Amino acid sequence: MDSDYGVPRELSDLQKQRTLYQPELPPCLQGTTVRVEFGDATTAADPASAHVIGQNFPHTYGQPLAHFLRATAKVPDAQIITEHPAIRVGVVFSGRQSPGGHNVIWGLYDAIKAHNRNSTLLGFVGGTEGLFAQKTLEITDDILSTYKNQGGYDLLGRTKDQIRTTEQVNAAMTACQALKLDGLVIIGGVTSNTDAAQLAETFAESQCSTKVVGVPVTLNGDLKNQFVETNVGFDTICKVNSQLISNVCTDALSAEKYYYFIRLMGRKASHVALECTLQSHPNMVILGEEVAASKLTIFDITKQICDAVQARAEKDKHHGVILIPEGLVESIPELYALLQEIHGLHLQGVSAENISSQLSPWASALFEFLPPFLRRQLLLHPESDDSAQLSQIETEKLLAQLVDKEMNKRLKEGTYKGKKFNAICHFFGYQARGSLPSKFDCDYAYVLGHVCYHILAARLNGYMATITNLKNPVNKWRCGAAPITAMMTVKRWSRGPAASLIGKPAVHPATVELKGKAFELLRHNASSFLMDDIYRNLGPLQFDGPGADAKTITLCVEDQDYMGRIKLLQEYLEKVKSIVKPGCSQDVLKAALSAMASVTDVLSVMASPTFSSQPRL
Amino acid sequence: MDSDYGVPRELSDLQKQRTLYQPELPPCLQGTTVRVEFGDATTAADPASAHVIGQNFPHTYGQPLAHFLRATAKVPDAQIITEHPAIRVGVVFSGRQSPGGHNVIWGLYDAIKAHNRNSTLLGFVGGTEGLFAQKTLEITDDILSTYKNQGGYDLLGRTKDQIRTTEQVNAAMTACQALKLDGLVIIGGVTSNTDAAQLAETFAESQCSTKVVGVPVTLNGDLKNQFVETNVGFDTICKVNSQLISNVCTDALSAEKYYYFIRLMGRKASHVALECTLQSHPNMVILGEEVAASKLTIFDITKQICDAVQARAEKDKHHGVILIPEGLVESIPELYALLQEIHGLHLQGVSAENISSQLSPWASALFEFLPPFLRRQLLLHPESDDSAQLSQIETEKLLAQLVDKEMNKRLKEGTYKGKKFNAICHFFGYQARGSLPSKFDCDYAYVLGHVCYHILAARLNGYMATITNLKNPVNKWRCGAAPITAMMTVKRWSRGPAASLIGKPAVHPATVELKGKAFELLRHNASSFLMDDIYRNLGPLQFDGPGADAKTITLCVEDQDYMGRIKLLQEYLEKVKSIVKPGCSQDVLKAALSAMASVTDVLSVMASPTFSSQPRL
Repeated sequence: MDSDYGVPRELSDLQKQRTLYQPELPPCLQGTTVRVEFGDATTAADPASAHVIGQNFPHTYGQPLAHFLRATAKVPDAQIITEHPAIRVGVVFSGRQSPGGHNVIWGLYDAIKAHNRNSTLLGFVGGTEGLFAQKTLEITDDILSTYKNQGGYDLLGRTKDQIRTTEQVNAAMTACQALKLDGLVIIGGVTSNTDAAQLAETFAESQCSTKVVGVPVTLNGDLKNQFVETNVGFDTICKVNSQLISNVCTDALSAEKYYYFIRLMGRKASHVALECTLQSHPNMVILGEEVAASKLTIFDITKQICDAVQARAEKDKHHGVILIPEGLVESIPELYALLQEIHGLHLQGVSAENISSQLSPWASALFEFLPPFLRRQLLLHPESDDSAQLSQIETEKLLAQLVDKEMNKRLKEGTYKGKKFNAICHFFGYQARGSLPSKFDCDYAYVLGHVCYHILAARLNGYMATITNLKNPVNKWRCGAAPITAMMTVKRWSRGPAASLIGKPAVHPATVELKGKAFELLRHNASSFLMDDIYRNLGPLQFDGPGADAKTITLCVEDQDYMGRIKLLQEYLEKVKSIVKPGCSQDVLKAALSAMASVTDVLSVMASPTFSSQPRL
Repeated sequence: MDSDYGVPRELSDLQKQRTLYQPELPPCLQGTTVRVEFGDATTAADPASAHVIGQNFPHTYGQPLAHFLRATAKVPDAQIITEHPAIRVGVVFSGRQSPGGHNVIWGLYDAIKAHNRNSTLLGFVGGTEGLFAQKTLEITDDILSTYKNQGGYDLLGRTKDQIRTTEQVNAAMTACQALKLDGLVIIGGVTSNTDAAQLAETFAESQCSTKVVGVPVTLNGDLKNQFVETNVGFDTICKVNSQLISNVCTDALSAEKYYYFIRLMGRKASHVALECTLQSHPNMVILGEEVAASKLTIFDITKQICDAVQARAEKDKHHGVILIPEGLVESIPELYALLQEIHGLHLQGVSAENISSQLSPWASALFEFLPPFLRRQLLLHPESDDSAQLSQIETEKLLAQLVDKEMNKRLKEGTYKGKKFNAICHFFGYQARGSLPSKFDCDYAYVLGHVCYHILAARLNGYMATITNLKNPVNKWRCGAAPITAMMTVKRWSRGPAASLIGKPAVHPATVELKGKAFELLRHNASSFLMDDIYRNLGPLQFDGPGADAKTITLCVEDQDYMGRIKLLQEYLEKVKSIVKPGCSQDVLKAALSAMASVTDVLSVMASPTFSSQPRL
């Protein structure tokens, strides 16, 4: 850990200009008074999990939603928080850096100071390790000045990604107590927010007065559910990756001799790959979710790509661009099973060089079939969330090699008559992760920082800051907070070492919804993307002019606005009440009873644990 | 070759906006009349080469410089070209695509049509192969509409990179004659412009009436000399690469656990790596020119990096970013010698799998020492310019592995006490090459296209379009043309198969000048870059606002303005003449004679073939 945290950075002209950008606040957060309206008690989306989650989180499960409204909003039940005593808040980066992270801290700082100049914001330096070791840096205007709207996590740094063991949880609690923190804000993704929920529960149980708040910041875009529409960083990452993918497409079309296999950082889910495909229109994308649903083997995928190469060659096209999510390797059944065996042996303490000799016969056969570079990568120690070291496993190279082999075979057999197949492989991740955040991510993160303050001012514990209606301009955004436990599911089956996670509630990692609108859009265009080279170059991320305010296609087409629909439902229920007041006609009452009886019947069935074990979130 | 050339592309919002951007013309090219002033006859920079070049290019060597001036310019000798008969011009992309290429065609088209609506511009589709096969596409307003200010070469495509064999030269001549071309414009780098000069000479000798013009378009930035300050594409490539390098630096500083080894596309010379270093301030750059000058072996370089890693670890820094030009492998003496042996065996027809057994003992020992992936890459067939397939040779991985091994050794021996060394490798090239061109490249290419027309209107043959004073705004740019032969040198020694090039004049490929100002700037900051992590994030390429008009640091600090200094010299000479007019005093005449005698003495010595065999260009 070096001592450079918080030092002013040398900035380029563009960086300097970006430090001057001031994100707008939605009307509900403007001014110094904010109303909080509490909704109904929350449940988990999967009825079958609800009971287990409730048992695991007795103090923090079932808390109500909170909505933040402007002080003048005419909502009878809403309470205005008028007291703003000086508070002490800690903030920590947890997990992979994601563009926009710094703005959460800036927004939180501005909100804290706007309500009481004597409040204090402490940043933990070096991630959760800094939290355990109580290493802090007091955030000031001066310190923030060269980090506003800037990428990276270098203001505070980050190291280890978890707060999970009893030792870690206790160290975190000791730190919060020693530093007399009223609140602890954890900036991170699925895993970090699961840890935040656990910490909140433990604090509540131990009557530690620090309230824990989570913020959805992850480039993977997989912290999505009823309450969370997208994550800080996802917009930027998809735009920078799309810029590079588009450039490679233009290159492919100019040189007409290469197939580019591009693997994209984004963990297990394929959200980044899907969004980039919708933006740049490469020829193919192999989504992990599709592969898993169809149980495609590595040979099926190879054949699919080879058939595409052959079909294109028949149209005299000998170039192309194929996207691969980094999590694909875990979606391919036989590779996943092999990885599970390897991880099991790791857990038993078998050293990497001895693992191959202890594999089962079938796993051993597959292992030996794989090229040496991939074998080495599969043997790497698994990550803290039990997944393989996805960033290090070059699935794109494996596929390129297998396709090359198969195309040569077809060429020899005479079934393929095109030019020699040539592949170039890329992994795009690190070069996007440190990017200056897009305007959307700057705004989203900054406003989330403000929301964190209001959650703490309302003394809520175990909540995540949420903003909905994001596809609309900032002045239409709705701010709120949802208990993290309401976003959880319980893993019910797993093989190998991940079996230890069975029965443990965790924030549900969203995968690409194969029935969703974004995927539908892809399917609708897939054959045209494949054959017609309708590449589209998004260009470099702009901060002014056309495209500067564009949002991800996924966000725009999904149009979930769950919170808006919850409100609409409440309005319907109120309307029924107001029509069927005592004194209404028998006919009206009869019709209402009959209609409501059938509605409640249907809903009871749908919400029962047996109806669906993995609900669509 | 597919049939998609010239079809309208689907454009993103930003692309659409860019098609509306209209580059400005410098005053000398505005309006419909342009004056041409011819300068003195040119020579080659290396006096020792001049004779050989003259022998090889009897028709095109020694032609005068041409300057294009505004019609109202008060230059007595300049001639105004008043006749603009309808002409037919062909244009072809040759060599690696470079951002801005499309704008040369657009500028040329606009200039041709502005002077005579009946003139015709034919694009050869599929590069030089299209030229040989006479496959053309007539350029129209409609066709250009979705390609203005866009990246790639996909309007016309490109395939083979050379016009060199007698067969190829004859095919090109036949095409020009069959299509009745008044001019042929070749868009490319060092090799393509050498071919252009050869073609011009052959056409002149054969009394073919087509005039050949070259345009300096190459992302490598190595077509630099007295007349050419920079190349179309270099600005964009350096900006996009710097964006990505900066992002990786931010990432390194946030995670603090990786060393990133980044190899940069740019052929043999290290111009791209140097510019990106000056922009982004990574910790280290290994310039090929420095390695060659100091004759550093691969082990010397490894040691240099290991010592840096160790020094940083002592300051508790376990991360860093190291840049490597793709041409480095040819600058390392022992690897270059090995490559030469391999290429020699290739030329003898030895197949790749048999090469290793026929190497000399020392080469074989080195070959066996190298990791298998690198051996495979070294065995690839050399490129058309006799260099290795630099884009395919992963020197960054070799260095990362060697450093890893050495750091582990030092760790075991106890001489290194830091954390375990972790490397991540990247190759940046294809993802930058297809980028939307920067404003500078859009302007530079568009104006060069105009200059090409004026060269053809003046009936000049074997010239390259030139623009100088580029670091200043467009309205200060000076437009001209220089004989390509004046940019040539003759290779005097070489080992292995490249020996066949000995004695053949070729456009001089500029390497990074170790006595130049850009390198001086690097040296001045190197220790601070290494230790202080003063990373600077250039951010994504902007088309508006701060940074949109920035130019490369290399261009700005080099400040060559050779053409301006030639003009200044002429003014001094005129002044001497005007002072020492017949009738002046004996004293004045005596002083002038004495001074001029010593000046001419010094210059004669400096310009003699023996003074320097490799002059600074």
